[in-house]
Amino acid sequence: MKIGYLGPSGTYSEEAAYQYRPDAEMVAYPSIPAVVDAVEKREVDRCVVPIENSLYGAITDVLDFLVRTDDIFIAGELAIPIDHCLMARPGTALADIKVVYSHPQSLGQSRRYLESTLSHAQAIASLSNAQAVIDMRESDTTAGAIAPRRAAEIYGAEIIAEAIQDNPNNYTRFVVLDDSDRPPTGRDMTSVAFRFSEDEPGLLYRALGVLRENSINMVKIESRPTGERLGRYTFLIDMEVHRADPVGVQTIEKLREMSSWFKVFGSYPRMAAPPIRA
Amino acid sequence: MKIGYLGPSGTYSEEAAYQYRPDAEMVAYPSIPAVVDAVEKREVDRCVVPIENSLYGAITDVLDFLVRTDDIFIAGELAIPIDHCLMARPGTALADIKVVYSHPQSLGQSRRYLESTLSHAQAIASLSNAQAVIDMRESDTTAGAIAPRRAAEIYGAEIIAEAIQDNPNNYTRFVVLDDSDRPPTGRDMTSVAFRFSEDEPGLLYRALGVLRENSINMVKIESRPTGERLGRYTFLIDMEVHRADPVGVQTIEKLREMSSWFKVFGSYPRMAAPPIRA
Repeated sequence: MKIGYLGPSGTYSEEAAYQYRPDAEMVAYPSIPAVVDAVEKREVDRCVVPIENSLYGAITDVLDFLVRTDDIFIAGELAIPIDHCLMARPGTALADIKVVYSHPQSLGQSRRYLESTLSHAQAIASLSNAQAVIDMRESDTTAGAIAPRRAAEIYGAEIIAEAIQDNPNNYTRFVVLDDSDRPPTGRDMTSVAFRFSEDEPGLLYRALGVLRENSINMVKIESRPTGERLGRYTFLIDMEVHRADPVGVQTIEKLREMSSWFKVFGSYPRMAAPPIRA
Repeated sequence: MKIGYLGPSGTYSEEAAYQYRPDAEMVAYPSIPAVVDAVEKREVDRCVVPIENSLYGAITDVLDFLVRTDDIFIAGELAIPIDHCLMARPGTALADIKVVYSHPQSLGQSRRYLESTLSHAQAIASLSNAQAVIDMRESDTTAGAIAPRRAAEIYGAEIIAEAIQDNPNNYTRFVVLDDSDRPPTGRDMTSVAFRFSEDEPGLLYRALGVLRENSINMVKIESRPTGERLGRYTFLIDMEVHRADPVGVQTIEKLREMSSWFKVFGSYPRMAAPPIRA
């Protein structure tokens, strides 16, 4: 089994892929579009990609890919804690660090730590958290990097501080993408997307009414721009039902009828909610 | 009148601020939190910040700030086209460019151009589009930058190609933030946010029902994580009504009653929709 993930080695995506299938062969790709392309082209059997963070919301690249593709389905979900570590070359003192590399999102998530403890250092953007460790190692000045624990092991860096993110409840939900979804287990989720024709306000309300009539719990609603113009959206809904359940079949049929465009992203076993940290 | 914006000079935010008030004194800040802080501290009278892009969706930093603050209101909106330009030091040939700097989002928005025309060049992340031009100028190797037209004038760069973004209909909607919102004009928008208590599914459906009963058109719905845990959201709605209109007063009262937390971001004159480009 080959699993694609957003590399380089040492990213949170790699951590999630290992948690999903510790025994699989992991294949790194340079971008989320490249990861999902690899599944479409069958270079890998599946991929594990981030879809939602508990603090920062949707990973919109992945949502937009799911809207565009026809051949890839959500086959599973899992969540991992995002514990940012400050790391540097072995023996580096905190006070000597002059620049800190990380992905702009991780820099933002560690704002309080950077302001209180590293206010003397300059933040520099890297293309990924793992790339930040490479950038740190290649830096001419004394540098640090914000990255996952795993990246320190892989690149031979020393961890100076752990879990430096502003909010301890920083989790990312990942989805497993495959060429088909999964059969019913009795505790399933179905992800769908739909758009309405231009001039019919109130249709979203009617669509949610279909779920209420069928006693289906909606777990999540997102809106994404269609790209046609400002103010036109695709709606993405996660609902607690399997699309092969009779009530799922009926609900999807009704939603499809009222939409100008409709798509099932897949039905898959629902994960347990991650613990809340004090 | 002093207007704060996300600098450095040469960003799309600066373009939007000039379009809103060409005669104002513009003050650049290094991050979106710093811009809105400046309004809270009355260092500037207002600020102009991006809130939504027609291709990439919500600018979540700004939404999350509006959820957190109590003193700042949306007082207006405007949209400008996002036309990315490839620029370099005067006299640089396209074929000689070895690295291209830009904000990761602009690199993503210009993917097709980069793959077809600059496949020989390496993409490097900068902290903003305007910073990309500075990085380009300071680069040891022959470099290009993807940035707004205005940045070329300011930093003395030469434009090699214009409007290189994948989709011509790339618009960003900006909002004006101030210490109060605006009186009714007859064509207004109201932005609100609300959360429900933990265990009541179906409340979002009932909330949208309140809008339907009062014949109020919902223009936009977003969900943002509350930060407590995965799966808990704040809903943000833009609706075509003024909060001082009788029907607005009534709707807001009902929404407030059914929410565990409720907030009005402001009522403001609605902008005209930008044109669609072929």
